[in-house]
Amino acid sequence: MSLRFLSQKVAQAIDEELMSAQGGFSIDQLMELAGLSVAQAVQKSYDASTHPRVLVCVGPGNNGGDGLVAARHLTHFGYQPSIYYPKQSSKDLYQRLLIQCKNLNTPLVPEEQFASHVEQNTDVILDAVFGFSFHGEVREPFKKVIDIFETTGKPIVSVDIPSGWDVSTGPTKQVSFQPSVLISLTAPKACAQRFKGERHFLGGRFVPPSLAQKFDFVVPAYPQGDQVVELKQL
Amino acid sequence: MSLRFLSQKVAQAIDEELMSAQGGFSIDQLMELAGLSVAQAVQKSYDASTHPRVLVCVGPGNNGGDGLVAARHLTHFGYQPSIYYPKQSSKDLYQRLLIQCKNLNTPLVPEEQFASHVEQNTDVILDAVFGFSFHGEVREPFKKVIDIFETTGKPIVSVDIPSGWDVSTGPTKQVSFQPSVLISLTAPKACAQRFKGERHFLGGRFVPPSLAQKFDFVVPAYPQGDQVVELKQL
Repeated sequence: MSLRFLSQKVAQAIDEELMSAQGGFSIDQLMELAGLSVAQAVQKSYDASTHPRVLVCVGPGNNGGDGLVAARHLTHFGYQPSIYYPKQSSKDLYQRLLIQCKNLNTPLVPEEQFASHVEQNTDVILDAVFGFSFHGEVREPFKKVIDIFETTGKPIVSVDIPSGWDVSTGPTKQVSFQPSVLISLTAPKACAQRFKGERHFLGGRFVPPSLAQKFDFVVPAYPQGDQVVELKQL
Repeated sequence: MSLRFLSQKVAQAIDEELMSAQGGFSIDQLMELAGLSVAQAVQKSYDASTHPRVLVCVGPGNNGGDGLVAARHLTHFGYQPSIYYPKQSSKDLYQRLLIQCKNLNTPLVPEEQFASHVEQNTDVILDAVFGFSFHGEVREPFKKVIDIFETTGKPIVSVDIPSGWDVSTGPTKQVSFQPSVLISLTAPKACAQRFKGERHFLGGRFVPPSLAQKFDFVVPAYPQGDQVVELKQL
């Protein structure tokens, strides 16, 4: 099986088709399944008994939404996540996802405590800052977050792409951290070829074969009822 | 652990609270997770290699929506579901859920072929006709469906409650079939005490402990990343 790596443009087109009148999906549905797959990938990589404290770093867009959904599922999986969410979206969906986490008493980390929280109160970092639509330079308040990704010794799990990487070419002059775990959503993006971490998962068990055929990518066989499958080799 | 069995009124209040501004959930989210839990319960009960042909009988409301979501996940799990959906909802959500199944080439069974389809082309029946808000007499076009549930030898998996049962008291003069498998959602309803089938599952891994406490019911420990847990004893 040879995986295809998607460009930013193709990844965008697939998302649009899934959520079109022809595709029929709502963003609530897709984000729920994506976030669940992220939580399952964390669970398969770091046991809740040894790595309960997952710091979920949440960006301003869909990648951040996946992170908020994952934070909720991780709580139900027995983890003790906390959330760093410095630029909260005013969109109804994101506000509701945050309410769902607050109802589970998930703490929000204040901006001034972020760095110390990473060092002292974190077993795993979940990087849900930027996804495949990110381009350009990383700016504050996220620059500080990515700078810590660059230097921390804590394991990082990245959602879809390592935040701040170029979606096509991977590490940049500004951002070159390597996450320990990568969870590609729907299909790996081009930059995933530069991923040198330990485990690479795929989530998005909702792609119709006709869509995969249209955009010429492979959907591997998922195990059992899981929403995530480990990609053994690139 | 002693389970609490919910009345129709309490089940309704829990759903309302989950989807209130305080609860933050959308129906898309809850139905996605409920339908996934249903598909996982089918998977744990009947292997796709021996029981691929799942006939999903879809009612006009939320229970039917759970069935449509389950049909989609079952396809991704390697089953070959078909759908009997004699009274299709005009609501956007249900239309979209149906489109998602059509995009997977899931066949819709015509009304005049329903009875023969059950006998000749079905390994397992998924009963997603009526849920906990049903009351009164079963009328056509669903009477014919329930009448077949009463007499068929095929195994039946019921979503939340066996369709047509009284949510409080269970079997009625008109409807007294026993499904082989029951998947209670959020918490078992009162009528589940009359369930005499083989396996009883619980789905709904999204309930905040504070909500369970408020309505005085127990959320058992789910295994791993599953959305469903088997209840060993009532």
